[in-house]
Amino acid sequence: MKYSIGVDMGGTNTDIGLVTENGNIVQRRNLPTNAYTELEPYVRDMMREIETMMAAQSAVDGIAAQLEGIGIGAPNGNFYTGCVDNAPNLTIKGVLNFEKEIHKYRDVPVVLSNDANAAAYGEYVYGGAKGMKHFIMFTLGTGVGSGIVVDGKLVHGSTGAAGELGHAILYQHGRKCSCGREGCLETYTSARGIVQTYCELKGCEVTPDITSKMIGELAHQGDPVALKTWETVGDQLGLAMANSVTFSAPEAIFLMGGPAQVGEPLLKPLRAAFEKYLLNIFSGTCSIRMSELKANEVAILGAAALLKMKN
Amino acid sequence: MKYSIGVDMGGTNTDIGLVTENGNIVQRRNLPTNAYTELEPYVRDMMREIETMMAAQSAVDGIAAQLEGIGIGAPNGNFYTGCVDNAPNLTIKGVLNFEKEIHKYRDVPVVLSNDANAAAYGEYVYGGAKGMKHFIMFTLGTGVGSGIVVDGKLVHGSTGAAGELGHAILYQHGRKCSCGREGCLETYTSARGIVQTYCELKGCEVTPDITSKMIGELAHQGDPVALKTWETVGDQLGLAMANSVTFSAPEAIFLMGGPAQVGEPLLKPLRAAFEKYLLNIFSGTCSIRMSELKANEVAILGAAALLKMKN
Repeated sequence: MKYSIGVDMGGTNTDIGLVTENGNIVQRRNLPTNAYTELEPYVRDMMREIETMMAAQSAVDGIAAQLEGIGIGAPNGNFYTGCVDNAPNLTIKGVLNFEKEIHKYRDVPVVLSNDANAAAYGEYVYGGAKGMKHFIMFTLGTGVGSGIVVDGKLVHGSTGAAGELGHAILYQHGRKCSCGREGCLETYTSARGIVQTYCELKGCEVTPDITSKMIGELAHQGDPVALKTWETVGDQLGLAMANSVTFSAPEAIFLMGGPAQVGEPLLKPLRAAFEKYLLNIFSGTCSIRMSELKANEVAILGAAALLKMKN
Repeated sequence: MKYSIGVDMGGTNTDIGLVTENGNIVQRRNLPTNAYTELEPYVRDMMREIETMMAAQSAVDGIAAQLEGIGIGAPNGNFYTGCVDNAPNLTIKGVLNFEKEIHKYRDVPVVLSNDANAAAYGEYVYGGAKGMKHFIMFTLGTGVGSGIVVDGKLVHGSTGAAGELGHAILYQHGRKCSCGREGCLETYTSARGIVQTYCELKGCEVTPDITSKMIGELAHQGDPVALKTWETVGDQLGLAMANSVTFSAPEAIFLMGGPAQVGEPLLKPLRAAFEKYLLNIFSGTCSIRMSELKANEVAILGAAALLKMKN
């Protein structure tokens, strides 16, 4: 039987999954990313976990498991170079050449991209975007990421860093962003941005107790400030999504990530805003959809899906 | 010898050019578009002009000229269907199937797209974007158009209408746009938008005497209100361009059209704004350039270039 490996490399944890051709994760392993400061031992331990899973799978199947390749979703992951380029959130510093390191152990295809691109491609290969030639994925979380598919291919651009719609400027002279500029979409529709909007509307200080999850629960209880928060966020995200349609005329825009799990309090104003801000020639040609992949599987499936680009 | 035909179909005039393999326009003809209300006589007369040019070229070359195909840039031109879809500015109404009509006369490839897409592809095949896999063209004129090339292919999107960056919303609740919405880039950086900005800064009424060309001349004479106008327009266009980089990470953004001819009064603040608004990871990866095609040739060359997509 043939299997792929999907690696979700986060700053704290690394999730490694053994994935079937159909996108089922049949085994999972973890590594504490922040316990490493060098790539060599990190990849050595990653490969040991992979070999353990492969051996176990061969035993289960009663026939040798074949490894198709290793896909990696990582912060600052560059598809073209196969390297992680100086990711500020990682304890392993510098330019990390995964392909070279992995090939010391296994001569298999290695593909690498950033998390949001991987999520988009996971949706394309295993999720709700199957068969779509043009779509965009927005991921809401600590930041706001995006992955863009045009003509059935992930858009990497000239540098490998395309698809950073979380850093498109929504409001000139708007909120200060961690990127050093002002008014990025991320400052309004990330988890932190949502909390800030809530606190501004409520007239309270931002504290660690206030989370986007809590604001979601309050909205479902009918809290007017929480509802107004999601309305505002929906309006802002709807505007950003409508603008993205003028670029590539996608047939769908997918949404995923923690804050998006709130459901209708966000989705209702989001869809209304999207229609309001959409150029008339695109009316009815593009729908907003939730990701069809499970929250705890999308990163691994997305990473594994990257391998399908080389095949 | 092999030749292509490029057709620039405007609301008033249609320019038809005979184009060599290297992008030289060796003959040109005109038709008064607005003298027609039906597609059949329009295409009949267009084909007559084309046959006249072909015969003349065969005589010049001393060998039969071969027609490679006919490329058409037209308002609301749809690449996928090969039709012009209900263009409001044309006297020939309805859905116009050019391919079908042309094939009554000549069995050659017919490719059709909107003007800005054609201009972008012309830059790619014959101009400054040769060899670039990722770039964006902004065209300033009566409106603001755009054409986007990703991985060496023009982005048409799921509907054929991708690349409408003139209708990305720059300022929520901004100026009223002809599309019925508010704040589109076009309302600020089209010829009309520039005139409006000038008049707002000057505190005068918008009259037909005030043109973007005149504001350009005033700027070169050192007029402070004119200079401030171009600074404002440069800032707005620079922001829009920086936002477009987050989408496809192009290696260059090209600029063309009447208002862009003003040169430094626009280009200097434009480049400064672009750097200011560009996400740091894209710093130094994307340059703003003027189109390298002549203003009176770009539309015909762009239309002829569309044929290179099918070849």
